[in-house]
Amino acid sequence: MARSDPGMILVAGGAGFIGSHLVARLLDEGNEVICLDNLQTARPSNLKLLEGRPGFTFVEGDITLPLPDAVTRHADRITRIYNLACAASPPQYQVDPEHTMLTNVVGTHHLLRLAERAGARFLLTSTSEVYGDPEVHPQVEGYRGWVSCTGPRACYDEGKRAAEALTFDYARAGRAQVRVARIFNTYGPHMHPDDGRVVSNLICQALSGRDITIYGDGSQTRSFCYVSDMVDALIRLMEWRSDALEPVNLGNPNELTVGELAEQVVALSGARTPLVHRPLPQDDPRRRRPDISRAQAELGWRPTVDLAEGLATTYAWFAQELAEERVPAEAA
Amino acid sequence: MARSDPGMILVAGGAGFIGSHLVARLLDEGNEVICLDNLQTARPSNLKLLEGRPGFTFVEGDITLPLPDAVTRHADRITRIYNLACAASPPQYQVDPEHTMLTNVVGTHHLLRLAERAGARFLLTSTSEVYGDPEVHPQVEGYRGWVSCTGPRACYDEGKRAAEALTFDYARAGRAQVRVARIFNTYGPHMHPDDGRVVSNLICQALSGRDITIYGDGSQTRSFCYVSDMVDALIRLMEWRSDALEPVNLGNPNELTVGELAEQVVALSGARTPLVHRPLPQDDPRRRRPDISRAQAELGWRPTVDLAEGLATTYAWFAQELAEERVPAEAA
Repeated sequence: MARSDPGMILVAGGAGFIGSHLVARLLDEGNEVICLDNLQTARPSNLKLLEGRPGFTFVEGDITLPLPDAVTRHADRITRIYNLACAASPPQYQVDPEHTMLTNVVGTHHLLRLAERAGARFLLTSTSEVYGDPEVHPQVEGYRGWVSCTGPRACYDEGKRAAEALTFDYARAGRAQVRVARIFNTYGPHMHPDDGRVVSNLICQALSGRDITIYGDGSQTRSFCYVSDMVDALIRLMEWRSDALEPVNLGNPNELTVGELAEQVVALSGARTPLVHRPLPQDDPRRRRPDISRAQAELGWRPTVDLAEGLATTYAWFAQELAEERVPAEAA
Repeated sequence: MARSDPGMILVAGGAGFIGSHLVARLLDEGNEVICLDNLQTARPSNLKLLEGRPGFTFVEGDITLPLPDAVTRHADRITRIYNLACAASPPQYQVDPEHTMLTNVVGTHHLLRLAERAGARFLLTSTSEVYGDPEVHPQVEGYRGWVSCTGPRACYDEGKRAAEALTFDYARAGRAQVRVARIFNTYGPHMHPDDGRVVSNLICQALSGRDITIYGDGSQTRSFCYVSDMVDALIRLMEWRSDALEPVNLGNPNELTVGELAEQVVALSGARTPLVHRPLPQDDPRRRRPDISRAQAELGWRPTVDLAEGLATTYAWFAQELAEERVPAEAA
C-alpha cells in the first residue's frame, strides 16, 4: 500500500444491526469500506441505505468458509478489520448452534489470518454474555464470568469466549494488533423486528397492538446503549493507541428492569396494551450492567443518548418500517 | 453394518498418553480399533506397543483438517468415537495456541460430523481445566468455573469449554449420542518425559539426579489418578446407558500438595536431591480435586490404584525408558 493510500476497512457483519450503522459512519468519514456479510440476520433495507454510497463495496460471504477472493484480493490495502459477524439474539443464534460456534471460532480465525497477512488491526466484538449470569455487579472486565458451557446459550457465550482467547493469542504472538469490545445490550433503528431482543420485541408488540410479553416477572435488569453511542465507542476502541491484552466493556450503565422498560414503551405507544408474563428462558441473566471505567479512562468515551430519547427515535423508526412492510402486503 | 459385525472403534489421539492405554485395552477386549493421531505429542514407543496387534490400524492425521479417507471410508462400521486428541500439558499446548484451539473446536466438529454420519456414539475428553482456578472445592460438574478467557491457558481451557458446548448441541439436536468426560490429573507409564506435567517432571528429575523443581511454594494441590483407572472410567462412560446432557468428572479424589508429591518421588529415588522453587505460572490453579459422586453413582466406578503403588510403577517405567534412551545416545 502506498503511503498516500488511506487504505480500506473491512467490516464483517456490516449489514447487521450495529454493523450497518458502523459502516455508514465509516463512509461518512470518507473511508473505503468492504462490507462482508452472509445476510443471515441482516435486513435488506440496511443494505439499501449503503449501496451506491461512494467507497462502499458489498461482498456476500460466510466467514466460516475461506474468505472470498473479492475480500482477500484487497489484503494489501486493508488496514482495519472489524468483526461483527454473528447472530446476537438467542432465538437467532440458537437456530443453528453449530454455525454460531463456527462463526465465532472459525470465522474469527479466518479474519485474524487476514489481519496478519494484511498487517491490519483487528477488532473483535465480543459480548457481555462472556459474563454469563453474573455474580459480580456491575461487571468489570476482570470478572471471569458465570457461564454454563453445556447449556443452550453456550454456542454463543462460549463461542465468544473462545474467539477472545484466539484473538489475544494472535496479539501475544505479535501476529496482529487486536482490540476486543465486550458489547452490552444495544438498541436503535435497523434492529430486526423478529430478532427476539427485548427492545424490538416490546416496540413491535406495542405497534401492532399485540399483548406485551415479559419473560419472568420482569425484575431482571438490563442496561441499554443507543446504537450511535456504540458505534462511536467501537471506532474509538479500534483507534485506541494501547496494545494492552485487555478487553473493554462498551455499554450504557443506565440499568433498569425489563418491567420498567416495558412501561416506557407502553407510554410511548399511548395504548393500554396488556402485559403478559412468560417463563424465563434457561440461563437468562438476572442482572446486567457494565462497569465502563476502562472505556471512560482509556477511550474518553461515555454514552450521550439517554433512554427516553433513544427509545423515541427507535419507536418512530419501527413505526415507519412496519407501515412500509404493511403496504406491499396489503396491496398483494 | 451387518448385525453380526461388532464394528470398529475410532480413537483420535490414540497414540498419546491416555490414548495408547485406551487403545491397548480396547484391543485386549477384542475390538477393531483405528488410532488417528498427528504424532504431535505422542511417543513413538507408544505406537510400537500397538502396531501389529490384531485389529489395530494406525492412521496419521490431524483432526483440524478434513478427516483422512483412511478413516472416513470405515464410517459404516464405526460405532464408537473417542476424542482424546489434544496436547494436554501447558508447555505443549501453549507452543501453538491457535492449533490447540482449532484442535478442540474444529477437530471436535469434524469428529462429531463423522459420528452423525456413522450413527456412532461420541465421547469427548474434556478436562478439569474447564473449572479454571476453582472457587468451589471439590469441583462438582454443576460448577461453572473460574476461567480467564484472555490469558495464556485460554486456548486449552476455552477450547475444551467450546468443544463441550458443540458436543452437547449435537446431542440436543439428536444428531449424535454423546458422552463428555472431565478428566482430572492422570499419570502413569507412557507419559512424555518432556511434557512438563508435574509427575513426569518430578520423576525424570529424580532419575537424572537434577534438582527437583517445585513451582510456587508447593502448597497448591492436585489429585492424581492412575491411568488404568482412567481408562476403565472412559470405557464405562462410553457404554453408559444414559443420554443425559451432563458431563462426568473422572479422577481420583485423593488430594495432596505438590510438595507432598515431590517428597514421595524423592523417597522412591532414594536420593537426596535438592528441592528448588520456581515462580508459579500465570493462572495456575491453586486447588484441584474432583467430586466423583456422579461417576460412582452412574458408572459404578471408583479409582482402585493408590498413589504409592501407581507412583512406584510409573517410576520403574520411567527408569527403564530413560535407560533405553541413554543406550543409543551413548553408543552414538
